[in-house]
Amino acid sequence: MLNFDFYNPTRICFGEGRIKDLDKLVPANARPLILYGGSSAERTGTLAEVKAGLGDRDALQFGGIEPNPTFETLSKAVEVVRNEGVDFLLAVGGGSVIDGTKFVAAAACYDSDPWEILTTNGAKIKSALPFGTVLTLPATGSEMNNGGVVTRQSIHAKLPFRSKLLFPQFSVLDPTKSYTLPERQVANGVVDAFVHIVEQYLTYPVNARVQDRFAEGLLQTLIEIGPDALKKPDDYDVRANLMWVASLALNGLIGAGVPQDWATHMIGHEITALYGLDHAQTLAIVLPAVLEHQREAKGKKLLQYGSRVWGINDGTEEQRISAAISKTREFFESLGVRTRLGDYQLQHDTIAPLIAQLEAHGMKKLGEHRDITPEASQQILEACL
Amino acid sequence: MLNFDFYNPTRICFGEGRIKDLDKLVPANARPLILYGGSSAERTGTLAEVKAGLGDRDALQFGGIEPNPTFETLSKAVEVVRNEGVDFLLAVGGGSVIDGTKFVAAAACYDSDPWEILTTNGAKIKSALPFGTVLTLPATGSEMNNGGVVTRQSIHAKLPFRSKLLFPQFSVLDPTKSYTLPERQVANGVVDAFVHIVEQYLTYPVNARVQDRFAEGLLQTLIEIGPDALKKPDDYDVRANLMWVASLALNGLIGAGVPQDWATHMIGHEITALYGLDHAQTLAIVLPAVLEHQREAKGKKLLQYGSRVWGINDGTEEQRISAAISKTREFFESLGVRTRLGDYQLQHDTIAPLIAQLEAHGMKKLGEHRDITPEASQQILEACL
Repeated sequence: MLNFDFYNPTRICFGEGRIKDLDKLVPANARPLILYGGSSAERTGTLAEVKAGLGDRDALQFGGIEPNPTFETLSKAVEVVRNEGVDFLLAVGGGSVIDGTKFVAAAACYDSDPWEILTTNGAKIKSALPFGTVLTLPATGSEMNNGGVVTRQSIHAKLPFRSKLLFPQFSVLDPTKSYTLPERQVANGVVDAFVHIVEQYLTYPVNARVQDRFAEGLLQTLIEIGPDALKKPDDYDVRANLMWVASLALNGLIGAGVPQDWATHMIGHEITALYGLDHAQTLAIVLPAVLEHQREAKGKKLLQYGSRVWGINDGTEEQRISAAISKTREFFESLGVRTRLGDYQLQHDTIAPLIAQLEAHGMKKLGEHRDITPEASQQILEACL
Repeated sequence: MLNFDFYNPTRICFGEGRIKDLDKLVPANARPLILYGGSSAERTGTLAEVKAGLGDRDALQFGGIEPNPTFETLSKAVEVVRNEGVDFLLAVGGGSVIDGTKFVAAAACYDSDPWEILTTNGAKIKSALPFGTVLTLPATGSEMNNGGVVTRQSIHAKLPFRSKLLFPQFSVLDPTKSYTLPERQVANGVVDAFVHIVEQYLTYPVNARVQDRFAEGLLQTLIEIGPDALKKPDDYDVRANLMWVASLALNGLIGAGVPQDWATHMIGHEITALYGLDHAQTLAIVLPAVLEHQREAKGKKLLQYGSRVWGINDGTEEQRISAAISKTREFFESLGVRTRLGDYQLQHDTIAPLIAQLEAHGMKKLGEHRDITPEASQQILEACL
């Protein structure tokens, strides 16, 4: 096991009806701003429920945070915060709204150009507004961690940031709030959580037995509930398990003390930034190709993954590794999330611009061995066609 | 899944050599008091290492906190805190020292008789000194939760307490600090962690798939490493996994959203208070009898436990349940921890006083169904003979 620090002070308030606790969770004298996405928060009644949960407060609202939240939109929210004396943020939505809220929390307290927050991966953040979240879309885990990703539309850059100051103070996880999600978003959420887990698990063994067992348990749960998450949108237990898995997939726990490989996310970000695919669609495309490209370096863990998660115990090692990668691809496809660039009409000529963007963003040594160079990324993307 | 709150702000600093980080972890201007147990902290050099880790500070010391820490001893530590203007506590030891430090942290700030802290299960705690821990004995999980147990020797009472104010600010987990532990303490630690997990897992199903998988993963890990934890005291990976399992076994995570059954601990506490057995020895005696007594109510989870943790898949349901309970008993015995009252020369006449103590302490409705009455406890204890 590698040395590690684990620290996660976010309070999770889990279960049906917990939005009514907001008035106790938000500091008594705070002037909150509710941040949300499109019209669905209004249409489904969640926004009204949140306002009721806040009691007599005079809460401001900022809607219109888009999927892959943009620096441009969030900068307008920062203006509202500054002009209106807002001192507490409340994100109502999925990972995009929560990531965006984290950026606003930091940018509102940032003295110079907030773009620096993204070009320095959050390293220059010295203070941030406190914030909480009401989660409606189980997927990214942003509700229980201190990181986010923001896109600058004007230059097609999608960049991550994190800071110890950006943990939500609380997150309300009410599984019933996910009942009205479109099937595509639910499927994307399952894939996103699955890939988060894999990226902290499928590297090389360091005898971190607990982390391995936890990762495997989360993957097994996603495989068990994935189909019903699509078929039975109002099955409470299915959505409750999906919501809790997605939070635990990226709250620091399974990644503590083990090597990590975020190559799939980094390559995927560039596909979204240039060609507009959903985040999870890019992951479903890139992950199988990364595993295939790294099948030797990841061999031992791929065999363990195949055996413990998929029950693959017969055949040669090569056959078992291939079967484990195939099962992964088939799982994504079974959810309706396609796994080839060609499924989105992206051909070979789309790869060179992606490599150029990876290089421009310093993503030249990806993977747990830092050996996924631009040349390797090129090979991986060619295998995604 | 049941509704739940999960909140755990303790920072874990894990790995060999982390004691040197103490100077950064303890607030710069604090006046700390180091609390520890017997002479082993001095003999092994851990105390000196801690003092060196604290840098130039003028740290006070309070040694002599015993296993099953007593109200009497801890009251002396409270006096030191008050007389010397101590404003930060640092526990160096295992669960007893950490539990005791939690009590001192609360009692030092308590205006009336601190005995009330124990008679009200911590409900009256309004403030507490901040504290950190350096863990030397993986077992109780106290290093990553907000509860403790203290014994009042004069009346043979061993009572639990907890408070949201009693999370350690940090805990340093250096597996090498456990190398010098006597075999008996290591075996006790494995049993204690195992029983903590079982008490949050073996109740009735509420479709909490993640919590079940995590609990099963922790149990599997203990079963895998248990023998080597005794045979190879300086195997870093074994001790690292043991230490992290023990913390995760009782940090709130696997118990969030599921029914719990602490009957084994409550009955065990009385055995320790009256007859002086080690805490884990009492658990190894009581747990198999509780599972047997509740085999119908716990049937579904016992079958799941048998299958997933022990690989028991053949035979009738009754046979599989019996096999799962037998495996549990055999595991404890394999570690050298005996599982019968008779192994400690405690005969039938020792039971009536235990029941009287359970009644005196209000432990009349134990178990996840609150149906373990004093009569049921009597039956359970008779089955422990």
